[in-house]
Amino acid sequence: MYKSTLVVASALLAACTAASAQNPRPEEIIALERAALDRWGKGDPRGYIELFGAEVTYFDPFAKRRLDGIDELKKLLEPLAGKIKVARYEMLNPKVQFYGDVAVLTFNLVNYNAAGQESNRWNSTEVYARDKSRWKLVHSHWSWTTPELKTPATPN
Amino acid sequence: MYKSTLVVASALLAACTAASAQNPRPEEIIALERAALDRWGKGDPRGYIELFGAEVTYFDPFAKRRLDGIDELKKLLEPLAGKIKVARYEMLNPKVQFYGDVAVLTFNLVNYNAAGQESNRWNSTEVYARDKSRWKLVHSHWSWTTPELKTPATPN
Repeated sequence: MYKSTLVVASALLAACTAASAQNPRPEEIIALERAALDRWGKGDPRGYIELFGAEVTYFDPFAKRRLDGIDELKKLLEPLAGKIKVARYEMLNPKVQFYGDVAVLTFNLVNYNAAGQESNRWNSTEVYARDKSRWKLVHSHWSWTTPELKTPATPN
Repeated sequence: MYKSTLVVASALLAACTAASAQNPRPEEIIALERAALDRWGKGDPRGYIELFGAEVTYFDPFAKRRLDGIDELKKLLEPLAGKIKVARYEMLNPKVQFYGDVAVLTFNLVNYNAAGQESNRWNSTEVYARDKSRWKLVHSHWSWTTPELKTPATPN
């Protein structure tokens, strides 16, 4: 009896540990983001829309408040189809912090136009959560890197 | 034997479930953030420093790149002690998304100076991860809400 109890207990503990700590790789998350960025640069916002979880929350420098939920995001991004053109981008120093089924991807992004000039620089936070075996983008925060303001501001 | 195996199995499953889904409350996370903001507004950056996990990553509109790790954050924030003064703030529409031991807190923040004037508006993402029973701030992204740039930019 003692032995079979131990066998069942070990199996359950192993299953429990596996469920909470499958070892994902940073490259897997970075590849998801790059695939969405590649489509974005070609004028296709659906790469991001397909990644979003239903509950996604979102900040960018054009929105007066946080946007909540995939419907708000579709309304924002779908009209941009065909209007975005990023000739090339650099994803600088991407880093992924894993906590169970959550991956926090952060990077600086530099976009270039067709003339090869830098068009803008971004700070990016992309929070992914694993839903069954699939990673969904559940929070996204885009901001300008060191924006030069019309009226300078302080951190107060 | 069968019965005792079941008892052990049930106990383990219960423990496993509890570990991955203790029910944290949004108010708990919001209170941590408010406590740090309260101290910040009085010129004390240590409220945030004490919350940071060792591996914290950080964006703000003054930094040319992402800052990594508590030592970089201390170097940035400790010299601000006594120099920050926020008379009052409003945390607008805070929302907490929980995924296992991760809490993604997002809100818009409006700061006011001593004359009662709005001094600035922020988009804020604060990612907390539970380490044993304690929540640590593992990623922080602060950006201006709809900044008016000297040279207007597009999302390309």
